[in-house]
Amino acid sequence: MRTKAAVAVAAGKPLEIMEVNLEGPRAGEVLVEIKATGLCHTDEFTRSGDDPEGIFPAILGHEGAGVVIEVGEGVTSLAVGDHVIPLYTPECRECEYCLNPKTNLCQKIRSTQGAGLLPDGSTRFSMLDGTPIHHYMGCSTFANHTVVPEIALAKVRKDAPFDTICYIGCGVTTGIGAVINTAKVEIGSRAIVFGLGGIGLNVIQGLRLAGADQIVGVDLNEGKVEMATRFGMTDFVNPSKVDGDLVAHLVGLTGGGADYTFDATGNVQVMRTALESAHKGWGESIIIGVAPAGAEISTRPFQLVTGRSWRGTAFGGARGRTDVPRIVDWYMDGKIEIDPMITHKLSLDEINHGFDLMHEGKSIRAVVVF
Amino acid sequence: MRTKAAVAVAAGKPLEIMEVNLEGPRAGEVLVEIKATGLCHTDEFTRSGDDPEGIFPAILGHEGAGVVIEVGEGVTSLAVGDHVIPLYTPECRECEYCLNPKTNLCQKIRSTQGAGLLPDGSTRFSMLDGTPIHHYMGCSTFANHTVVPEIALAKVRKDAPFDTICYIGCGVTTGIGAVINTAKVEIGSRAIVFGLGGIGLNVIQGLRLAGADQIVGVDLNEGKVEMATRFGMTDFVNPSKVDGDLVAHLVGLTGGGADYTFDATGNVQVMRTALESAHKGWGESIIIGVAPAGAEISTRPFQLVTGRSWRGTAFGGARGRTDVPRIVDWYMDGKIEIDPMITHKLSLDEINHGFDLMHEGKSIRAVVVF
Ligand SMILES: [Zn+2]
Ligand SMILES: [Zn+2]
Ligand SMILES: [Zn+2]
Ligand SMILES: [Zn+2]
Repeated sequence: MRTKAAVAVAAGKPLEIMEVNLEGPRAGEVLVEIKATGLCHTDEFTRSGDDPEGIFPAILGHEGAGVVIEVGEGVTSLAVGDHVIPLYTPECRECEYCLNPKTNLCQKIRSTQGAGLLPDGSTRFSMLDGTPIHHYMGCSTFANHTVVPEIALAKVRKDAPFDTICYIGCGVTTGIGAVINTAKVEIGSRAIVFGLGGIGLNVIQGLRLAGADQIVGVDLNEGKVEMATRFGMTDFVNPSKVDGDLVAHLVGLTGGGADYTFDATGNVQVMRTALESAHKGWGESIIIGVAPAGAEISTRPFQLVTGRSWRGTAFGGARGRTDVPRIVDWYMDGKIEIDPMITHKLSLDEINHGFDLMHEGKSIRAVVVF
Repeated sequence: MRTKAAVAVAAGKPLEIMEVNLEGPRAGEVLVEIKATGLCHTDEFTRSGDDPEGIFPAILGHEGAGVVIEVGEGVTSLAVGDHVIPLYTPECRECEYCLNPKTNLCQKIRSTQGAGLLPDGSTRFSMLDGTPIHHYMGCSTFANHTVVPEIALAKVRKDAPFDTICYIGCGVTTGIGAVINTAKVEIGSRAIVFGLGGIGLNVIQGLRLAGADQIVGVDLNEGKVEMATRFGMTDFVNPSKVDGDLVAHLVGLTGGGADYTFDATGNVQVMRTALESAHKGWGESIIIGVAPAGAEISTRPFQLVTGRSWRGTAFGGARGRTDVPRIVDWYMDGKIEIDPMITHKLSLDEINHGFDLMHEGKSIRAVVVF
């Protein structure tokens, strides 16, 4: 079949909207009609050429929602008409990682996914001249139709709107999951969130959901205060307005340091501040942000010996097929909010404008609706 | 009263054996006759002048065992004749830290202890000319008698020999506790221990006690193999004999990385190797060793985002009054071994020779017996 897609033809170039060939699903694969997809910083990281592992040409996008159109041989957990969210972290439920309750990093299809291929080592997308187009993070949601492995699709309820639940495919789950799955924040905790972009806001609403007593937001941009407060922030700190040491200020504000701190900036200096503003004895600091290639975090080991833990999270520690449908339920039940974070809706033809909005800091999330 | 002590008169000088004045216990304090004390690297760190927080003159020593001679006003948990192990990490059972099950770092007397004083801000020791002599880590076990706060004494069974259980006051508890309290190692785990000195050996026997399946020891000194094997090491790696990358070698040896790694070297480069040889997805690396002042640990945040945790431990995460008596029981019941690690017994007059043995790598533990 043919479908319409935004193709990353080369590093640093705008996406090109074009008709592409899409083969039907092979064994264990599913053809999905994408109804909506968010634009994430990770897509832009790859598009821009900053990602040293970027492969071109490729169809980017990893934050989508859609409907199953056709299932390949042997697919048993999904049927035509099911609503699904593609998962860049799959859940095979049988690999060493899926069988270990301490991790969500299913490795079943990792090597082919990392190479921009489906598990059998080939692509389903190609240019009209036959040139193969790579898949991206196993999802490739910047296309009206895509083929995804069965183990990388979460089946979700049919009454949930595609143009908001697509955000659960990355940002929402990453932020809320960091709180619930990775940190396992307890009721009454004090927390600090560094960076009040989309991920930071979702960390904040995760903390509210978990019953945190104090939720401190840290950002250089005062414009973030209103939205962060709406999502549950109790205290705001603008580092540029703090006299003296930021760590000392945050330790004072939280009565000795926070029980949990979260870095949602990707800046390694901020990651250090996040660790060191965690409480002596038991504070945990969770890295969510993706740092530039080659950047390193540092601290004195004394920070750890005196009881702080330094950890990280990917996809919020979520097992997608199991956890994503629950988060969709939380959204439909009003336990979490998504709508205010979807600041822009675009057509696929306008997708490059969505990246402009991201760079200008004007969007929390821009969503392409097909 | 007067007692005999080894006094650190100034940074970098040998200890001087002398008679000193010792005041009796004030409220909440206990006079202890020290029967035996180990010589730990931390004592030498301070004696040598490398410890930027070292205070002189002081009576060092923090790894002792003895008998209660007199109790001060209000002391209720100890009586004359009780056998005790002094605790450099006290357990008051009422501060914010003691009431938080995630930490053992009782802060009740921290500021005075750090300043070489008893909790009322004074010293009990003085030179015969009246010059005050500082306490050290709240213990000062390099003296035939010492005064210690009640909350910093673990009461232990009377049939346990002083000249081996003194080691439970620091090294044994630090190593075994890192495994049991901090890492909470599960049966069947794979582990790597960096540094096969006294702490490393105790980590190894802690891992054996916890039922680890694989216990890899890493040390540049082949002479450590026999003793480490006796304590439970299953595999030995000499980094100087590994071709290529040590992390890759260790990851291969442990089937993808260790579930738990422990640094018992204090070397920040080794701490990085320990983190990076932990298993993707769930490996935890625990820092036990004390690094030189100003040294920093570093890694790429990717190591944490892909599921490794970086943590530390002090006094093995043990709550001394509760846990130390249990470890003494384990020793008396044969669950753990101490005797082979006590390689030298000295008189107080020979204490400087004990530090020579430490520097020459000839001792695992030298113990002064009074
Ligand atoms: Zn994303
Ligand atoms: Zn799996
Ligand atoms: Zn010690
Ligand atoms: Zn306490």
